[in-house]
Amino acid sequence: MKTHSAHFNPERQRQVLQALLKVLPANCVLHELEDTKPYECDGLAAYTELPMIVVLPEDEQQILATLGVCRELAVPIVPRGAGTGLSGGAMPTSDGIVLSTAKLKRIVQLDKNARTAIVQPGVRNLAISEAAAPLGLYYAPDPSSQIACTIGGNVSENSGGVHCLKYGLTLHNVLRVRIATIDGEMIELGSAALDAPGLDLMSVFIGSEGMLGIVTEVTVKLVPKPECAQVIMASFDDVITACNAVSDIIKAGIIPAGLEMMDQRSVHMVEPFVKAGYDLNAAAILLCESDGSETEVRDEIERMSRVLQQAGATAIAVSNSEAERLRFWSGRKNAFPAAGRISPDYYCMDGTIPRKKLAQVLQGIADLEIKHQLRCANVFHAGDGNLHPLILFDTNTPGELDRAEQFGTDILAMCVDVGGTITGEHGVGIEKINAMCLQFTSEENDAFFAVKRAFDPAGLLNPTKTIPTLHRCAEFGREHVHHGQQKFPDLPRF
Amino acid sequence: MKTHSAHFNPERQRQVLQALLKVLPANCVLHELEDTKPYECDGLAAYTELPMIVVLPEDEQQILATLGVCRELAVPIVPRGAGTGLSGGAMPTSDGIVLSTAKLKRIVQLDKNARTAIVQPGVRNLAISEAAAPLGLYYAPDPSSQIACTIGGNVSENSGGVHCLKYGLTLHNVLRVRIATIDGEMIELGSAALDAPGLDLMSVFIGSEGMLGIVTEVTVKLVPKPECAQVIMASFDDVITACNAVSDIIKAGIIPAGLEMMDQRSVHMVEPFVKAGYDLNAAAILLCESDGSETEVRDEIERMSRVLQQAGATAIAVSNSEAERLRFWSGRKNAFPAAGRISPDYYCMDGTIPRKKLAQVLQGIADLEIKHQLRCANVFHAGDGNLHPLILFDTNTPGELDRAEQFGTDILAMCVDVGGTITGEHGVGIEKINAMCLQFTSEENDAFFAVKRAFDPAGLLNPTKTIPTLHRCAEFGREHVHHGQQKFPDLPRF
Repeated sequence: MKTHSAHFNPERQRQVLQALLKVLPANCVLHELEDTKPYECDGLAAYTELPMIVVLPEDEQQILATLGVCRELAVPIVPRGAGTGLSGGAMPTSDGIVLSTAKLKRIVQLDKNARTAIVQPGVRNLAISEAAAPLGLYYAPDPSSQIACTIGGNVSENSGGVHCLKYGLTLHNVLRVRIATIDGEMIELGSAALDAPGLDLMSVFIGSEGMLGIVTEVTVKLVPKPECAQVIMASFDDVITACNAVSDIIKAGIIPAGLEMMDQRSVHMVEPFVKAGYDLNAAAILLCESDGSETEVRDEIERMSRVLQQAGATAIAVSNSEAERLRFWSGRKNAFPAAGRISPDYYCMDGTIPRKKLAQVLQGIADLEIKHQLRCANVFHAGDGNLHPLILFDTNTPGELDRAEQFGTDILAMCVDVGGTITGEHGVGIEKINAMCLQFTSEENDAFFAVKRAFDPAGLLNPTKTIPTLHRCAEFGREHVHHGQQKFPDLPRF
Repeated sequence: MKTHSAHFNPERQRQVLQALLKVLPANCVLHELEDTKPYECDGLAAYTELPMIVVLPEDEQQILATLGVCRELAVPIVPRGAGTGLSGGAMPTSDGIVLSTAKLKRIVQLDKNARTAIVQPGVRNLAISEAAAPLGLYYAPDPSSQIACTIGGNVSENSGGVHCLKYGLTLHNVLRVRIATIDGEMIELGSAALDAPGLDLMSVFIGSEGMLGIVTEVTVKLVPKPECAQVIMASFDDVITACNAVSDIIKAGIIPAGLEMMDQRSVHMVEPFVKAGYDLNAAAILLCESDGSETEVRDEIERMSRVLQQAGATAIAVSNSEAERLRFWSGRKNAFPAAGRISPDYYCMDGTIPRKKLAQVLQGIADLEIKHQLRCANVFHAGDGNLHPLILFDTNTPGELDRAEQFGTDILAMCVDVGGTITGEHGVGIEKINAMCLQFTSEENDAFFAVKRAFDPAGLLNPTKTIPTLHRCAEFGREHVHHGQQKFPDLPRF
């Protein structure tokens, strides 16, 4: 069994434990190795660290009491939802506590007329939709972990999902967040009304990866379940044409409920596994979904089919039943497990680029496959410009892990270079903190730190993550230059 | 001619002027009374103050140079767009400069494929749509001042408009903002891609009313001009039924392009003036617009008509031509000028409430008419819950101005009490700074100040506006209590 790191200090653990047990019930504080082990990592299992103590408060008062102890004794705090994050945002520190909101899982209120739900942070994403189903409503953002991930984590990561092109990210589906600050105050950000006066601190809080405070309650928007949905599967004989078709759909003023692309390698990887009926001869396929009333869907499917044909689709199939629609989607949704069947390891990237750069960046990734001598399967939210290149490699082949990591860094640098970002929906966490040096200037990182200090002057909340210090960027040896002027001499140029 | 206030210090003016003229061309710096007079107020003409100096920089370098002088000499800065704001956000201080971005009016780039425009802050809102028209695109937010107001001002106030229910506020239509900070740095917030890593400082900047930095460039989203639009005019024989019909439309999952209500007083005020064909017998009328493809509009108009009928509409008319659509809207758009025809003075409020509280708050306003012995006409963005009660009064009748102001404060307190806000789209500025004490706790105002200080430690940017000090709230004599527990003994209770 994993033991504590060299930095672990048992005397310090006793001190903090004693202070916590004065304000919390004993069953809310874990410190034995076998109890804290499940918290040693989140979905980014490559990075692990045993926390000093894990705290599971049952209410707001207990959260405030925990923060009070940490403030007084200067103990770092790593907030944690369900631990499904993919960027190590909930990875513990050996000298700090993990504060899990898992026990706060009450749905406080469902309001059919206002179409809102008030929920505690530990409520699972899908549980909101299940609770709202009898009202004909659901919560739109649908990260692929939605069966397990919690709304508190969604708020911290600003999670998206397949439908976020039409329905938006977490930010666009949350009205109000209640927060415990490290100063021991309760504040409410946002408003049940359309806009709120003052600074829009709710937006800065959503996606702040646990750096600013602890979520204790969230008011989310609910939307009506669409009457029906249909999906088009379109084949293309080259990737560039498929990328241009994505632009054409958006240009035509259509916002599909989902607009996903898979390249030939992804299709070949997935089809034997799920038998979705994908066109194995296509260089790329697009899945374009429409949802709404029957009239709307019929009209939109017709318009999208026309645009896709004009854009050069070689074949078009429209789902004729709900079963067929789910079959078309099954391949896309199982792309990651399928990658695990054909390669011992894979590394999933999360770069996001302006849509019009899709073709250019895919060509760049193809060039990088040759440079790094590794295969890459491309599955992505094409409508959002959110790429998920899956770099396939084998840890047991010497050098492949290093090459895969360098491949990933090169992809992210390319995304920044064309005006995109290093992460679309997985967050920065610990995984992409070096890549932040590619994305932002030291002035921009300074602005982030200034706001971080405004909420957390002592830097106790999720320290060392998300925002890189100037020192770290200097060590990483990359300096950001604005507007794609940066030259990466070893990267393919565009 | 208005002269400087008692606080004006000519020696100080000479010092600052000299420093500014070292870094700026002479024609960019105004200091003579006749030149600075036009800047003494914004759209809230009741509050005036002559600025010490007005600076009109021509580019980013000149903005940075101006900020450098102000930083060094500790001169307050009031940023200004077109000066159409309604809350005094651009009202000068006598010891400071006004920094106008009026000369930065270049459209830098229009991108048809990405559907974006990059514009300088002094570009007028409507000028963006005019420039994009040949591409079949337009910029959606349409404040009623759109012919004059600039995108820099829109960003600072997070402006809305009649169509923001469907198309969102400025925040939802801006991708990236470039900013000069008081530290003399240029930073870019937001991203051309779907999401950006790091803290979402763009959202906190939008609507920050000039407190955080100077906008130097904005990337906005453009949307395709809808193929067609139609509007329904529905009559109701009582206001409550009309309010419930608004909820019913939203409940049915329809997001109209516009959803406006006028009460009988507004209709009677407007109809003789514009002859829009409004139903003078109705206690309230609703205007419900649909836009999109012809099929979509036909379908949505049909569905909305059905919901309105079921909700108890006594008459329903659908526009049959573009001319008729514009005629239906003309009454709504001319409500403010019409108020000027029937009353010497009027005071326009801007409270926003959860939609389900519409009926309750309208009843409350009716009660307040009796309490304050003043008439009030109600015109509002019903779909958004954004009320614009027009309190009618006569400054020349002793006591009426005071009663009108108290009436306004009571309405805002009521809005906060039911879970709403003191401003939907006009901003806080100087006008509603006391009302902020009703809205937020001292902890929440502290959080605003902490973020303000992170950007502007010396407090030079638009000081004394938007966020009230604890001292001010104490003087105002109101203390916020959370969740509508506050008791206003002199207010109608709900």
